[in-house]
Amino acid sequence: MILQNDLILRAAKGEDIERYPVWLMRQAGRILPEYRAVRSKLSGFKELVETPALAAEVTIQPVDLLGVDAAIIFSDILVVPEAMNVPYEMLEAKGPWFNHTIRSEEQAKRVETDFDVEDRLGYVMEAIKLTVKELNGRVPVIGFAGAPWTILCYMVEGHGSKTFSEARKLLYTNPTLAHQLLQDITDVTIRYLKAQVKAGAAMIQVFDSWAGILGTEQYATFSLPYLKQIADAINDVPVTLFSKGAITSIPAIAQLNCNNVGLDWNMDVAAVRAQIGDKRTLQGNLDPCALYGSHENVATETIKMLHSFGKNKRHIVNLGHGVYPDVDPEKVKTFIKTVKSYEIN
Amino acid sequence: MILQNDLILRAAKGEDIERYPVWLMRQAGRILPEYRAVRSKLSGFKELVETPALAAEVTIQPVDLLGVDAAIIFSDILVVPEAMNVPYEMLEAKGPWFNHTIRSEEQAKRVETDFDVEDRLGYVMEAIKLTVKELNGRVPVIGFAGAPWTILCYMVEGHGSKTFSEARKLLYTNPTLAHQLLQDITDVTIRYLKAQVKAGAAMIQVFDSWAGILGTEQYATFSLPYLKQIADAINDVPVTLFSKGAITSIPAIAQLNCNNVGLDWNMDVAAVRAQIGDKRTLQGNLDPCALYGSHENVATETIKMLHSFGKNKRHIVNLGHGVYPDVDPEKVKTFIKTVKSYEIN
Repeated sequence: MILQNDLILRAAKGEDIERYPVWLMRQAGRILPEYRAVRSKLSGFKELVETPALAAEVTIQPVDLLGVDAAIIFSDILVVPEAMNVPYEMLEAKGPWFNHTIRSEEQAKRVETDFDVEDRLGYVMEAIKLTVKELNGRVPVIGFAGAPWTILCYMVEGHGSKTFSEARKLLYTNPTLAHQLLQDITDVTIRYLKAQVKAGAAMIQVFDSWAGILGTEQYATFSLPYLKQIADAINDVPVTLFSKGAITSIPAIAQLNCNNVGLDWNMDVAAVRAQIGDKRTLQGNLDPCALYGSHENVATETIKMLHSFGKNKRHIVNLGHGVYPDVDPEKVKTFIKTVKSYEIN
Repeated sequence: MILQNDLILRAAKGEDIERYPVWLMRQAGRILPEYRAVRSKLSGFKELVETPALAAEVTIQPVDLLGVDAAIIFSDILVVPEAMNVPYEMLEAKGPWFNHTIRSEEQAKRVETDFDVEDRLGYVMEAIKLTVKELNGRVPVIGFAGAPWTILCYMVEGHGSKTFSEARKLLYTNPTLAHQLLQDITDVTIRYLKAQVKAGAAMIQVFDSWAGILGTEQYATFSLPYLKQIADAINDVPVTLFSKGAITSIPAIAQLNCNNVGLDWNMDVAAVRAQIGDKRTLQGNLDPCALYGSHENVATETIKMLHSFGKNKRHIVNLGHGVYPDVDPEKVKTFIKTVKSYEIN
């Protein structure tokens, strides 16, 4: 299929672009009334994730309604531990919840790795295929997975946490088990991402949402080697590595076999560019809270952010974190409009 | 009163020391069975905070039981907003909860600043006096307060949060109100800390627990100017500024009129030392999760951390975050013993 808008892929590859591509993490779901209309008819979040036609519908909504330059498949990083026999529930107001946690070798016995990802996660691939078909080349579809470290955090902790001290405890008490689980997650994730690419994902993003709770050395030990395996395994499409909060590890991340490095809103763009040079595209990094401002302020903050990246064409515009649920979609449109009208040359 | 152990004060001032001083954030409370015995007889956390004799008792426990080189007064940073007529409750398993949040000028009308801190927070000063008297010079007492930015986070958000997006929203929607509240908190905090010093606190620590959710520029705008006022106002005793997660702001923090800069466990000690030079003492920064390891591993990790600080005598040993509640006190003793037997010269 010929893409009518391949801006984001060109930016990822360091090719010429006529303007900066823009999309938002969490653009599918959360903020759009049209999303909530679909969601309200269902039993819960997981029904939406597991119903390809509906997942495709909400994936395409921001392309139609907001004018973003890419669609990211509506799903959740926690489908991977679920496929590995560590299922989750999504509790209203509480977030993800696991009835089984994996903190010991005994508990790790339930973890399954030797399965066909199409069998257990076929609904994601089906949703990607439907999305690609319905988009009909308007914009590329981004597939994604959680980084092994972040998935381990949830498998061990069993729910969200500010410190993930149970997960970090494992790194000190049983690093062997931690590495074994990380390798298991990595193996499944590689098969899963390859299946997403086969289904039509034109770019892959790996979310290391809890990167920031590890110091540089532990990140190098417990996250980077697994990110490396993933980045090395996905060759057919550009790969984005987004390690939230891992500011001191950015140079090491940029060394991996990826196209794009995601930056959170706290990261100093000029400093990162100086550290890693021009061989990678940077993605980010407007503070999601900037979208709470007036339309005028949204435009001002967006332009300030764009300036911070200089005139370097290796930039995919995004927020520095997922868009927050109570943001006015009209403000998102102002953000996108501002990016699209920004003179690149 | 002559101090028998003034190691921490000498380290803070850059004077000679024969070994590194050591204490733990959150050492008073949480981990000791002797603390839980006191706590279990009471209606709740706040009763303990507000009862000077008991607060003094649990403040002294880690000096007796763990052998730390300083006592930090058992209290909470949220006593300040409470004194300002924005009261909190401490809910089991949920953490702090405010029935009133301050997000608008209308809501800000309830905020009071023109009061005598002895009237509303006298119980803290009383607890400090009792602690100083009962310690009888064995170790110094550390007083503390939250940084204005962190207190604002709670006043606006009303409870803990991973993103504090309500608090950060205010910075974009009504920066004038944010600055007004920050100034109000600063004014009260300075009076409060001076009263703590008058009561006998020999060192002051300011906790900017939510520093890490602001980028460098916003931190410079909404936190540093208020930290500066506090650091400039407290002259009689050493001041420690601990801005958790504010890695890119450390050089600016070190420029303030403080003795010690606290480092969290993710901060690279050598990099920070290279940035800020030798004019400040660094405090930290063992990963609190390291205390989950075996005794042997605790010792190894502690020595590794000590090595990372080089042989620089401007070091006060601590964790990089408050000690976690389920840590075995025996492991804490191993940490402390390892520090005390570490050859400094």
